[in-house]
Amino acid sequence: MKISKLVSEIHRKKSFLCVGLDVDLAKIPKHLLNEEDPIFEFNKAIIDATQNLAVAYKPNTAFYEAYGIKGWQALEKTIKYLNSNFPEIYTIADAKRGDIGNTSRMYAKAFFEDLGFDSVTVAPYMGKDSVEPFLSFPDKHTILLALTSNEGAFDFQTKLTDGTEFYKKVLATSRQWENSQNLMYVVGATKAEYLTEIRAIVPDSFLLVPGVGAQGGNLEDVCKYGMNKDVGLLINSSRGILYASNERDFDKAAAIEAKKLQLQMEKILSTLT
Amino acid sequence: MKISKLVSEIHRKKSFLCVGLDVDLAKIPKHLLNEEDPIFEFNKAIIDATQNLAVAYKPNTAFYEAYGIKGWQALEKTIKYLNSNFPEIYTIADAKRGDIGNTSRMYAKAFFEDLGFDSVTVAPYMGKDSVEPFLSFPDKHTILLALTSNEGAFDFQTKLTDGTEFYKKVLATSRQWENSQNLMYVVGATKAEYLTEIRAIVPDSFLLVPGVGAQGGNLEDVCKYGMNKDVGLLINSSRGILYASNERDFDKAAAIEAKKLQLQMEKILSTLT
Repeated sequence: MKISKLVSEIHRKKSFLCVGLDVDLAKIPKHLLNEEDPIFEFNKAIIDATQNLAVAYKPNTAFYEAYGIKGWQALEKTIKYLNSNFPEIYTIADAKRGDIGNTSRMYAKAFFEDLGFDSVTVAPYMGKDSVEPFLSFPDKHTILLALTSNEGAFDFQTKLTDGTEFYKKVLATSRQWENSQNLMYVVGATKAEYLTEIRAIVPDSFLLVPGVGAQGGNLEDVCKYGMNKDVGLLINSSRGILYASNERDFDKAAAIEAKKLQLQMEKILSTLT
Repeated sequence: MKISKLVSEIHRKKSFLCVGLDVDLAKIPKHLLNEEDPIFEFNKAIIDATQNLAVAYKPNTAFYEAYGIKGWQALEKTIKYLNSNFPEIYTIADAKRGDIGNTSRMYAKAFFEDLGFDSVTVAPYMGKDSVEPFLSFPDKHTILLALTSNEGAFDFQTKLTDGTEFYKKVLATSRQWENSQNLMYVVGATKAEYLTEIRAIVPDSFLLVPGVGAQGGNLEDVCKYGMNKDVGLLINSSRGILYASNERDFDKAAAIEAKKLQLQMEKILSTLT
């Protein structure tokens, strides 16, 4: 999907919400466990209930791999369901991949071509030739980990590297790579106070922002410091929406939580113009 | 598998060879494409032909994910085949995963419990709480990326971070984590000259060393600078063994290449005692 299409969908839906599809069979309503594919049935119900409130969905591949073949099948069915029924929705494979060149090409093929995702998250540790194979796909996006939402982000990402914080070095260096216009970045909502400095380095890039909700990040702060002229933010919520209820009303409860976020986003967007 | 078992297998087989099972359907012998599961048939033949020469096998998950459900099935069949028929062989899921804590737990479950690998490669960028969930499994190993074999390793890994090279900071910091006795590290054979300094920081840890062969690394140099009292090295070769021939004799050709490496290793091991 072209970025311009994503931006126009954000304005049409008055939302820059991304719903993280991190399905844990121990947390979903019990009655779904009798279905042939509980993970997909859960996702389908969540998508149907929230698709008018969200512009993006982000399955985290760990939650599918943990269930082996069945999990992988559920992931395939989920992305196909999204692409067939809601082609206007932006899709993110939260896979955090990254390997030497010929291997990264295989990952890029898996997520962009075979599964048909619009984007994939990638770890920067192995450098340019581990990321560029992802960047070469037109209208597909590579969302590079910059400053993540977890406590461990302070172990390495914020350390002084060549005179600057390491995550800033990742941001600045990656802008020099071929097809860097296809880059987005992960910045945790729990690190909102860093966004001003991040925007100084990547003013135009979209940021995928996890960590609102269960992890404690604040939506207003993220928007205050991170928004740009194209909005430039996808705010992800996973557990806060998916597990709002674990009864038969789980989809309605999810829609209520998504609506709360969408209304906050609508209010913020209205101040932009 | 306990490390002591791996070490005794190395001495028994006079080999510290790891065969990387990076199966590319475009490169395998044409006649296998008629099989129901060409990837597994290829792996099975390679394993059968080289199992007396290698102590470890390392499927890179990218090459399986690239073929969707069928690829994932081939990966499951391959690890089951190894664990059922050659329980003395050490297995590595080359997955380069790493995510926030609750997600890393799902990955650890996928690779250690469901698939039954002895170890998994993990990227360090997200820090302690992204790695510790992997470390908590007894007799399972987490192989942290330290200094990788590709050119992009020089983009970030060798940069000065808090006064030292970043890969050294990863090595030193990770030793402080809980259950760090379950850590191993990836160090590319193409960076053999760094091994003396690496051994000063992690004298006792096993190192997984890719990059011998197709990528240009040198076995003697790696052993000269990287070997410790328990050998402490697993030398990986993938393409040089797998694609020695793409005719019907591919397994015999693979065994010949593996034998060449094993003989070099036997010679090096004989100088140890």
